Amino acid sequence: MATALRHPTAVSADADLTLRPLDLGAARVTGGFWRDRQTANHDTSIPDGLRRLHESGALENFRVAATGRGPARGPIFADSDVYKWLEAAAWEYARQPDERLLAEQLEITRTVGGAQQPDGYLDTVVQLRRGKRYGDPAHDHELYCAGHLFQAAVAQHRATGRTDLLDIAGKLADHLVREFGPEGRPYVEGHPVVEMGLVELYRETGVRDYLDLAARFVEERGRGLLHEQDPQLDLTYFSDRVPVRETTSPEGHAVRAVYFAAGAADVAAETADRPLVDALARQFEAMASTKQYVTGGLGARWEGEAFGDPYELPSDRAYAETCAAIGAAQWAWRMLLSTGEARYADQIERLLLDAVLPGVSLRGDEFFYVNTLHLRADASPDTERSAANGRRPWFDVACCPPNVMRTVASVGAYAATASADGLQLHQYVTGDFAGGGLSVHVETGYPFVGTVDIGVLDAQDGATLGIRIPAWAQGATVDGRAVGSGEYASVDRRLQAGDRVQLRLPMPVRLTTGDDRVDAVRGAVAMERGPLVYALEQIDQADDVVLDDLRMPAEPEFAEVPGPGLVEGDVGLRFTAIQVGRAGRPDRRVTATAVPYFEWANRGVGPMRVWVPRV
Amino acid sequence: MATALRHPTAVSADADLTLRPLDLGAARVTGGFWRDRQTANHDTSIPDGLRRLHESGALENFRVAATGRGPARGPIFADSDVYKWLEAAAWEYARQPDERLLAEQLEITRTVGGAQQPDGYLDTVVQLRRGKRYGDPAHDHELYCAGHLFQAAVAQHRATGRTDLLDIAGKLADHLVREFGPEGRPYVEGHPVVEMGLVELYRETGVRDYLDLAARFVEERGRGLLHEQDPQLDLTYFSDRVPVRETTSPEGHAVRAVYFAAGAADVAAETADRPLVDALARQFEAMASTKQYVTGGLGARWEGEAFGDPYELPSDRAYAETCAAIGAAQWAWRMLLSTGEARYADQIERLLLDAVLPGVSLRGDEFFYVNTLHLRADASPDTERSAANGRRPWFDVACCPPNVMRTVASVGAYAATASADGLQLHQYVTGDFAGGGLSVHVETGYPFVGTVDIGVLDAQDGATLGIRIPAWAQGATVDGRAVGSGEYASVDRRLQAGDRVQLRLPMPVRLTTGDDRVDAVRGAVAMERGPLVYALEQIDQADDVVLDDLRMPAEPEFAEVPGPGLVEGDVGLRFTAIQVGRAGRPDRRVTATAVPYFEWANRGVGPMRVWVPRV
Repeated sequence: MATALRHPTAVSADADLTLRPLDLGAARVTGGFWRDRQTANHDTSIPDGLRRLHESGALENFRVAATGRGPARGPIFADSDVYKWLEAAAWEYARQPDERLLAEQLEITRTVGGAQQPDGYLDTVVQLRRGKRYGDPAHDHELYCAGHLFQAAVAQHRATGRTDLLDIAGKLADHLVREFGPEGRPYVEGHPVVEMGLVELYRETGVRDYLDLAARFVEERGRGLLHEQDPQLDLTYFSDRVPVRETTSPEGHAVRAVYFAAGAADVAAETADRPLVDALARQFEAMASTKQYVTGGLGARWEGEAFGDPYELPSDRAYAETCAAIGAAQWAWRMLLSTGEARYADQIERLLLDAVLPGVSLRGDEFFYVNTLHLRADASPDTERSAANGRRPWFDVACCPPNVMRTVASVGAYAATASADGLQLHQYVTGDFAGGGLSVHVETGYPFVGTVDIGVLDAQDGATLGIRIPAWAQGATVDGRAVGSGEYASVDRRLQAGDRVQLRLPMPVRLTTGDDRVDAVRGAVAMERGPLVYALEQIDQADDVVLDDLRMPAEPEFAEVPGPGLVEGDVGLRFTAIQVGRAGRPDRRVTATAVPYFEWANRGVGPMRVWVPRV
Repeated sequence: MATALRHPTAVSADADLTLRPLDLGAARVTGGFWRDRQTANHDTSIPDGLRRLHESGALENFRVAATGRGPARGPIFADSDVYKWLEAAAWEYARQPDERLLAEQLEITRTVGGAQQPDGYLDTVVQLRRGKRYGDPAHDHELYCAGHLFQAAVAQHRATGRTDLLDIAGKLADHLVREFGPEGRPYVEGHPVVEMGLVELYRETGVRDYLDLAARFVEERGRGLLHEQDPQLDLTYFSDRVPVRETTSPEGHAVRAVYFAAGAADVAAETADRPLVDALARQFEAMASTKQYVTGGLGARWEGEAFGDPYELPSDRAYAETCAAIGAAQWAWRMLLSTGEARYADQIERLLLDAVLPGVSLRGDEFFYVNTLHLRADASPDTERSAANGRRPWFDVACCPPNVMRTVASVGAYAATASADGLQLHQYVTGDFAGGGLSVHVETGYPFVGTVDIGVLDAQDGATLGIRIPAWAQGATVDGRAVGSGEYASVDRRLQAGDRVQLRLPMPVRLTTGDDRVDAVRGAVAMERGPLVYALEQIDQADDVVLDDLRMPAEPEFAEVPGPGLVEGDVGLRFTAIQVGRAGRPDRRVTATAVPYFEWANRGVGPMRVWVPRV
C-alpha cells in the first residue's frame, strides 16, 4: 500500500506560513544521538507501553464499552493513553515499517471502533461511568480524548495508508460538528487538544467543517463559558479566563495552556489570521521571559500543575511536566512555521534536549512526570511523581509516557523545513533531509560536538541552505566564515550535489544567570555547554561532597571529562567548587563533576541540582 | 451558676510538667494590644461566624440529621466549624459573660444534641451522606469532628458551668472507647485532633478511658494502618508514615502534623512519658530550624497543604496556613509546660503575632487561609485562597476563621504559668495574672513598646517572678539590671504587694538572614523589630517604587515612623533602599516604608514582600 508519509503537521497548500514542514519520508534520522533515542523508543518504550495499555484497563474499557455495560477502569481520560500510543506506533512504523507493529495497531484500532456509538460518539469512560454525554465539560475530557484520537488517526493514515482509524475519527468529528458547530451550541472543554486534532484532521481529509469547528473552539474559550456549568470553577486553571487574542501570558494548567496555544496557532495558519499569530507570539515571549525554567521546563506549581506568576520559578518544586514541554515544542514548531524566526527553533532544541528527554530514562523504560531542577538529600518520596522516587515505569495518570513515545518517534520531522528559497536546518540531527530544491545528508556528534557536516546530495538551481545558528553560539562559523547567532546563516554559494558545508559551533561552558526576580536563582548560576543544561548529581561526587553546600567560585575553570557513558560521546564537566563549612567547619575546595541534565537519575536517584549559588 | 473558668489545657494534678497553666479567671487581658483584638473578635468575628454557620448549612446539617434523612451541605468536616465556633463562644463568655452569647451557645448545643444517635455516634455529614460509619478513615474526618466537639464541650463546661455539650461529648467519647479502645479495633484517622480533645475531656471528667484512648491513637499512628484501607494513600500526608517516637521532623499536611504532635504532648504529660516529650522536642527543633518561615508560618506547599523538604521555604508560594500556626502554638504551649524552656514561649510569641494574627483582618471581618510572604504585582487571584484576593469573609473550607476566634478569645491564658517557685510571665500582655503565690498587674505598649511594667498585687512569701527574655532581646534589663536573653529572668528579691518591676526590651531594627540553603532568602534580609516581622507593602511607597526591584543597602539606616494607624501605637520603619534599574535605566535610591507584617492587606491588597535582597 502506498503511504503518504506526510508530516505530523502537514499544512494545507494555502496555509499562511513562512516555512513548510517536510514530508516524513524526506526527513529521516539515520544515526547519532537521536537515532539511539529512537532505538530505545522502538525496542523498549513502545512495546512496554502496549503492555501497560493492557494492564491498566485502558484497552479493556473499549471492549467493555462495546457491550454497553460494565465498569470502566482508570482516569476519565484513559482513552487518550490508547490514542497516544497508537500515534506513537504510527510514527514509529513510518520511521521503520514493522509488520508486527502494524498488526498491533490495527487490532487496537478494531477494538477502538467497536466501542463507537452509532452516531459517532466515542468516549468509553464517559459511556460506562457517567451515563450522560458532555455533562461535565470542565472535567470529563471527551474532546481531549477526541483530539488525541484525531491525531492518532491522521498519523495512522499518513504512516500506513490505512483509513481504519481515520474512518472512526471522521465519524466522531462529524458528530462534534453537529453538536458544537454552527448549528450546535457553544462549548468549552476543560482540557484543550481537540483544536490541534481537528485542524490536522482537516488537513488530512479536506473537510472544512473540522477547521471551522477548531476555530470556533479557539474563539469561544476564555469567555467564562465554564462558569455556566459551575460558578466556582477556577477559570484560570482551564485557560478560560481571557480570550486568546487578549491573553498576555499563558496561565493556569501548563499542558492545557500550551496545547491550546498550539491549536490556536494551527487555526491561525490555516485561516491566514496574522493578528492571532501576533497575539500568540506575544504570549510565547511572555512565557519565555518570565515563566520558563532554564531547562525549557514549564509549570512552576504542583498545585494545579500550573504556571506560576511571572518570576515564580522554584527549582526544588519545579513541576515542569514532561507533557508541558512537549506541548510547548508543538507550539514553538507552529510559531516557527508561521514566522520563520530562529528563536522558536532554539526553543524546540532546548525543550527537546533539556525538558522532554529528561522525562524518559535512557533505556526507555521509565519516565518522569515532573522534572525538578533540585532534589535535596532529605527529599521525601511522598507521591508517585516525586523526584525522590526516580523515574517510574508508568503512572496512574499516564499522559507523559506515550506522549514522549510519539515525540521521539517523530523527532526527525522537526529538524528541517522548506520554503520557496530552499531548505532550512533547524536541529542538528544525523540524517537525510530534502525539500525546497535541496537534498542533504547531515552528520554530527551533536549535542556533544559542535561540528555539523552537511553533504549536498542533490540541489536545484538557486536553492539556498539556511542553517539555524543558536542564540547561545557565539563565534559560530559556516565553512570558516563567521556567522551571527540567533538567526539563520544562509549558504549563498550555488550548491551542487557533492558539495560539503561545515558548521562549527564553539561549545565552551557558559555560566548562565537568571532574572534576579526569580528567588531560586538570585546569585546563582547554571552551567550550560552547547544546547545542554548541566546538573550536579551526587553519584559523581566524592562521598564528603554535599551538593547543597557547594558554591561556584568567582572564576571557575572547567575541564571537559568523559560523561557517565550512558550516551555515546557524552561529556561531563569538572571544576573546583567551594564547599561551605557548616557547624563551625571552614569552607574548603572540592572537585565537582557535572553531567548533562537529561542524563540525571539514570544511575539510581540521589541529590541533584542545576543552579549553583556563587560564592 | 458557679463556673470553674479552668484553663483550655487544665492539666491533671499528677501530670508530669515543669510549669502549670493558670485558671482562666487568673489570667485576664485588661487592656492594650490584645484587648483590642479581643474586642474585634467579640464585636465582629464571633457574631459574623454565627451567621456563617447558618448560611453555610453547617447548623442545618444537625437539624436534618436529627430527622435521619436529607442532604448534607458543605465539606465532610462541616460539623467541626460549629464546634470550633462553640469553643470560641465559650472562651469569649469566660472572658466577658454575655447572656445572649450564652443563649446562642445553648441553642446550638441543643441542635447538636438532636443529631446524636442513640449509641453516642455523631457526625452529621457522614450520617447523611455516607451511610456507613468509619468507612473511609483517611477522608471522613469523624474523629476530627469528635475532637473539636470535645474541646468545645470542655470549654463550655469550664466557661459556663453547663454540662449540656459535655454530656453529648461524653456519650460520643464512650462510643469511641467501645469502638477503638482495648476491646475495639486499631484505628487511625486521616486528620488528627481527637487526641487533644480526648485528653482534655479526661482532664475535665476524670474518665481514664479517654486518656487511654488518646494514648492508643498516638501509638497506633505512623504504622501505615491507613494502607489497609487503600495502599495508594500517601502516608506522609496523613502523618502515618513513621511512629511518633521515631519521627525526626514533622512532615505532610502541616495542620495534621502539628495537631497530632500537640495531642501526643498532652498524652506525654498525663502519662509522665519523658521519652515521648524528648522525641517531640527533637521534632519541634527540626521543624523550627528547617521548615519554619521567619514569621513562624508552617507549610511550604500548597499541594497537600504540607511541610516541604528541609529548607524548602518559598516566600511567594508559602502556604503557612493560619490553622497550622494555631496548631503549632498549641504544640509549643504543651512543650513549654513540659520543659519550662523559654524557646517555646518565644515560638508562641512569634506564632501569635506574626503567623496567627495576619490570618484575620484588624476589623475581625475577613481571614487569610494562606499567609504568603511575597505577593508580586502580577500575581493571579486564581483561587479563593490566593493572597491576591486579600482576606475573605469566609471559605468553603472554613477551618481557619473559627480557629482564630477561639485562639484570640483565650489568648490571655497563654501569657503566664505557675510553678512551685512562683509565677512566670511568658507573653507581655496588659492584664492581671495570678498563680504560684503571686498576683500581678502588667501594663505595656507591647508589641510596639519594649517597656513592661509589672505591679505586684499580692505575694506569698518566697514566691518568685520569672520573666521570659526573648532570644531576640539583646540588652534587656529588669529594674535596670542586665539580663540574659533566651531564658527566664528571675526577680529574686522578696516581692510584696505594691512592688513594681520594670522590664525593658530594647527594640532596634534587626536585619535577619535566613539559612543560605533556603533559595528564597539567600542573599536577602527580613526586617524585625521587637517581636514583629515587618513587610513592605506597595500602598506605603511612592508610585514609582517597584517592590520587586528594591534592594537593601549594605548599611541601611532605619527611622521609626508612625505606622498605618490601624492599631494603636503601631510603628512603621523608613529607610533608603536601592531600586534596581530595568531596561537600561540606572539604579536609584528611593525611600521605602515597612509596616508590621500582621497589618498588611488591611488597606486593600497589593504587592508585598517580607524578604528584601541585599544590594
